[in-house]
Formats: sequence, structure tokens, C-alpha cells
Amino acid sequence: MKRRSFIAAAGALGAGLAASSFPRPAISQGKKQLKMVMTWPKNSPGLGTSAQRIADRITQHSGGQLEVKLYGAGELVPAFESFGAVSAGDADIYHGAEYYWQGKSKAYNYFTTVPFGLNGLETHAWILYGGGQKLWDELSAGFNIKPFAVASTGVQMAGWFRKEINTLDDFKGLKMRIPGLGGEVLRQLGTAVINLPVGEIFPSLQSGAIDATEWVGPWHDLAFGFYKVTKNYYYPGWHEPGTVASIGVNKKLYDSLTKDQQQMIEVVCNAEAFEQSAEFNARNLDSLNVLISKHGVSLRRLNDDLLREIGKVAEQTVADVGNSDAITKKVYESFLAYRKGAMEWANISERAMMNARQLQIG
Amino acid sequence: MKRRSFIAAAGALGAGLAASSFPRPAISQGKKQLKMVMTWPKNSPGLGTSAQRIADRITQHSGGQLEVKLYGAGELVPAFESFGAVSAGDADIYHGAEYYWQGKSKAYNYFTTVPFGLNGLETHAWILYGGGQKLWDELSAGFNIKPFAVASTGVQMAGWFRKEINTLDDFKGLKMRIPGLGGEVLRQLGTAVINLPVGEIFPSLQSGAIDATEWVGPWHDLAFGFYKVTKNYYYPGWHEPGTVASIGVNKKLYDSLTKDQQQMIEVVCNAEAFEQSAEFNARNLDSLNVLISKHGVSLRRLNDDLLREIGKVAEQTVADVGNSDAITKKVYESFLAYRKGAMEWANISERAMMNARQLQIG
Repeated sequence: MKRRSFIAAAGALGAGLAASSFPRPAISQGKKQLKMVMTWPKNSPGLGTSAQRIADRITQHSGGQLEVKLYGAGELVPAFESFGAVSAGDADIYHGAEYYWQGKSKAYNYFTTVPFGLNGLETHAWILYGGGQKLWDELSAGFNIKPFAVASTGVQMAGWFRKEINTLDDFKGLKMRIPGLGGEVLRQLGTAVINLPVGEIFPSLQSGAIDATEWVGPWHDLAFGFYKVTKNYYYPGWHEPGTVASIGVNKKLYDSLTKDQQQMIEVVCNAEAFEQSAEFNARNLDSLNVLISKHGVSLRRLNDDLLREIGKVAEQTVADVGNSDAITKKVYESFLAYRKGAMEWANISERAMMNARQLQIG
Repeated sequence: MKRRSFIAAAGALGAGLAASSFPRPAISQGKKQLKMVMTWPKNSPGLGTSAQRIADRITQHSGGQLEVKLYGAGELVPAFESFGAVSAGDADIYHGAEYYWQGKSKAYNYFTTVPFGLNGLETHAWILYGGGQKLWDELSAGFNIKPFAVASTGVQMAGWFRKEINTLDDFKGLKMRIPGLGGEVLRQLGTAVINLPVGEIFPSLQSGAIDATEWVGPWHDLAFGFYKVTKNYYYPGWHEPGTVASIGVNKKLYDSLTKDQQQMIEVVCNAEAFEQSAEFNARNLDSLNVLISKHGVSLRRLNDDLLREIGKVAEQTVADVGNSDAITKKVYESFLAYRKGAMEWANISERAMMNARQLQIG
């Protein structure tokens, strides 16, 4: 699918489709036909094609027992109704980002990304080996969902702004599309924060309904054409230092699968998380160079004083949200403990090495 | 297996077993029984248990068509003969690190790790999406092997030294176990460099046959007990900023598999690479804390001046090795181009964010 055609498709998403009549998964001769919905347009590069690969691989490696059909945002349900549809059994699997479900529980924010929090690898490590998955399973079981991490975007960009951003005051009165805890931080700073599925961002930015947006990073942002509206492209993405995408499987369905099928799905998800993390690393710089050299984008850095100021508000906001209820508190405290250790280790390993490499070669 | 028992097993590896009579893979009723050998003791935590999981998952998800049996280092062939055994078809799969095969081609070094080179994620990104796998396939096809990346250890530690290391002169005359390009760099600095499979490191360090060693990082190093001989534990691991472990499948065998089987193996490898990268992140700090608080280890940092000096020698050494023959030159140049881009991107993303996080919270 060419860029133009999925953007056109994306434009039509706002309307959404009424969730009128959902046939339950067909089961004939032991074969299950599964509906996978997602929060992005079909075939959008990266997250969209990644979801397709997950659907195809589950089908391929199930020995003919599972057949997953993928629907883009708005094809079966509107983007942000994916969670509810899977929870209710009207669809079987969603592909999205957990912070889109913060209306269900604020705890979901911590399974996507946290301002000044963990990078991609650290988030996955916390989920797989630091107690995160257990808490996530507990949280999602309450909604009849079994969740898996399936990608990390790496550190995101801070976003596209019509005007320059130099001080905290510059966030006041802005209308900005920014989801999750990053959005909560900017709300504290006086920004009018809204969340929109990606298919609705470009028209909103173009019409002036919003003044600023973040989406992902150069690879994804190039595809959606935000550079046509503004050239100010800021880094680093303090609000999303290692954003994780995820799938959620209807838990009743998941529990009905054989152990081999369950473990095959887990292997497919982990392989995808690996491949996507690598692909983001490989594609971002090339796309950034296209944005700069071909589309005249200005790469701008949020200054250290501003980052320090945002950071103070962010720590308080993340703590306030983290203390909002019992399950969120458990998740927040687990995250916080992992971050402490991860930062100590990063100072001996990744951060120490990246700075040493720069010292030598940069 | 308890730590003591695999160390005991490891101690017996030096002898190795003669590669006397290797029955070819049994094929009955379409089912293939495959022998997997490796360069580490069986059940050694991390790399050893990771290899076991790969063997088990290929077996589990092959629909009963493949059965992989894993042999620890020395059980079927000595650690460093794993490559030759798979190349010849005496074993079917090896699990190890490509720089152990630099005697076959110096190009192998670049598929494990390069001093001041790529971190784990960047190495995987280069392999999967930056042209690395194509070159690796070309290189290994010449040895009848199909290679896959299956783990990254993250940034390693610089090693265990009987005496303090403050200047370049301190490397002169040292006898040190250090493989790959890191070893080549220290050889330039006057170190007597040897490579030993992990099972032979501890006795060599204890007997004084070597003065220093690097192995992996806290998680792995704790298990092998180097702290019993010396307490000086240095970072950062300039020589191995993102070490990748790999498997190699006998290519004739691999080509005989169905497309589904081949792709299932690829999915299993990618899932394992993901899980291991995460597990290293989660286990290292805990193990480091044990080394320090329980075993009295001194965590020491190589100073910036020294890192800068080592870096100069490293760049030259990596280039010299990289220009040693046609295939190595292609690999080196591909690596070099990827590193340039990866560092530019890291300065906008991971490095920028790690420094901003430290600024805010540290």
C-alpha cells in the first residue's frame, strides 16, 4: 500500500463503524478463525505492518488450527474501541498501546511508557523479568484480556510544534495531541491535551484544531506527513523514552487454546518485539535525514533547563497518578523500583558506554 | 542444576572428547533428530539455559518433525570445535559466539561485537535491517552454515584484573583471557592475549596461568566465581559494547527443511534474542550487588583518558583487521556505515534520553 492510500484510508477513520453485529469466532473441525483489530490504519509502516506479521505468523505456525484476520482501525471498530471489543469477545485480539486504555485503569499507562522512565529494553526487562508481566496479567484479567508486549519504538521524538518551545510557559494554552502520562504532565503545565488515533492527527493539525502533536519518531512521522504543517521537530522524547506496543487476547479464548498454541503466540510476540525494536533503530535515522534534507524540517533540542523543569513536574505527576488506586499503586511501585536499578546499571553499562563511544569517536 | 555442579562439569571440559564417530541425523518417518552443541557448559545460567530453550522450542513448535538434543561444551566436541563439527555435518546446530571462529575468517568478529562499536540493539538492527544478515549468510554459506543471532548480553564489563589498571602501560605484559577484536587491541598494547572457553577460565585464573580475564557481566561472572581470585572488577566494557550470541545450523540440513520449519526456527531465534537481552538487563544489577556486598568486589571505572587512548588503538586495530581480506572488508565497511548512523541517532534518542533522565533523577 502506498503512503497516500493508507493516509486516505486513515482520514476516513474518524467516523468509525458502529459495533452492530459481531459474529463470535467460528469453530469448525477445531479450527478457530480469529478477528484481530488495531488502533492504526492497515498497512501503516511499522506498527501496522508489524500487526499484520503477528497475525500471519500465528496463522502460519498453528498447524492449521488458528487463522487470524487483521482489521485496520475503523474497519471493524473505531481505533480506541479495540480494547472494549476484545474484552467483550466481539473481536479476539487487539494490537495497540496500553496507555490508550487509561480510561479503564490508570495502571495501563505504566505498561506503555513513563516520562523520564525506562527505555525500550529496560521496559521489556521489567515486564519479562522484573515482575511487570504478572501485574499486567492481573490488571488485564479483570477485563477478560491476556496481554503481551510486541514492539518498542525506542525513544520517541518530543513532537511537532507550530512555535518554538523554550520555556515552561510555551506549553501554556497549547492545544496538543499527546496521550498517556506525557499528556498528564503537559496538562499540569496548562496545555489543552487531547488524544486522537493516528488517523485523525494530520487533519486536526492541518485545520488548526490542534497546535502541536507528537506521534512516534522519524520513521512513523514521515509517513503521516506532519512536516507539511510545521517544520519544528523537537527531541528528546522525555514523555516516551521507550514506548511499548502490545496485543491483548480475549482471555476466555486464550484459556481455551492448547499449551502449545499459547506458547507459540508468546514466541511470535517476543520475536516481533525483537524485530520491531531493531527496525525502529534502523529506519529512524534514514527517515530523519529525509525529513531534514527533502522537507526542510528543523531538528530542535529541548534545552536542559527546560527538561529539568519538565522533569520535576513529571515525577510528581507520575507519582500522583501512581497513587490513584490499589492496582495502579502496585504497578507504579514495581516500575519505580525497577527504574532505580536500571539507572544504576545503565550508568555502568549502556550510558557509560555510549558516552565513552562518543568521547572516542564523536 | 546448582552452580557448584555446573562449575564442576565445566572444570572437566579442558580434556574435551575426541570427535571419533558421529552418526548422521537420523531420519525416520520424516522426523529429524538434531544434535545441538555449544561453547558453554550445559545449564550454565543465561547462555546455557538460553541454548536449552532454543532446542526445546524448536522441538515443541515443529509439529513433532524436529527433535533437538543439546550437548554442553565437551560432551560431544570441545567448545571451540563446535563450528567445525556443524560445518562438517557431525553436529547440526551450534550455539556460541561468532568471534570464536575468527580463525576461519576475521569477518566473524564483526557479527559478535566490535570495540567502541554498536550496542546490542544497534547490532541486531544492523544484522536484521542494515544489511548485516545478508553478509553473514554469504560468509557462513562458505562453511556450509546458516547463522542466526539469538541473544545480546548488553554492554559487558571490562574484566577482572589482579592489579589496578590506570594507564596503557598497565596492559603491558599482562596475560589476559580476552577473545575477538578486544583481544587484538590488547595485543597491540603488549598484552599476552589468549582465548579460553569459559569452562577453563577459572582454573587458569586461579593457577596464575592468566593474570586477568573478561567474561560477560555480573550475572554470568558471579556464576563462575572469578571474585574468589581477584576483587578488581572494571567497567565499561569498551571491548564488547553489545555482544551477540548466535546459532549456526548446518546449511545442507537447513536447506532440506520446509519453509515453515525454517521460518519457525527464525521466529524462535528472534524470540530468544529478545528474551535474553531483557534477562541480561534484569539480572546484571542484582548480581553486581551480590558481588559487591557479599563477596567484597571493588567496582572500578576505567578513566576517560585511558578510554580515549584505548579507543585510538581500537579504531586502528578494527580498521586493520577489517581490511585483511575481501569479505572482511565488506563486513567492516557495512558495520562502519551503520555505526555512523546509529551514533547520530543515539545522540538524538537513547543517549540524549539517558543523559536527560540522569539530569532529572540522578
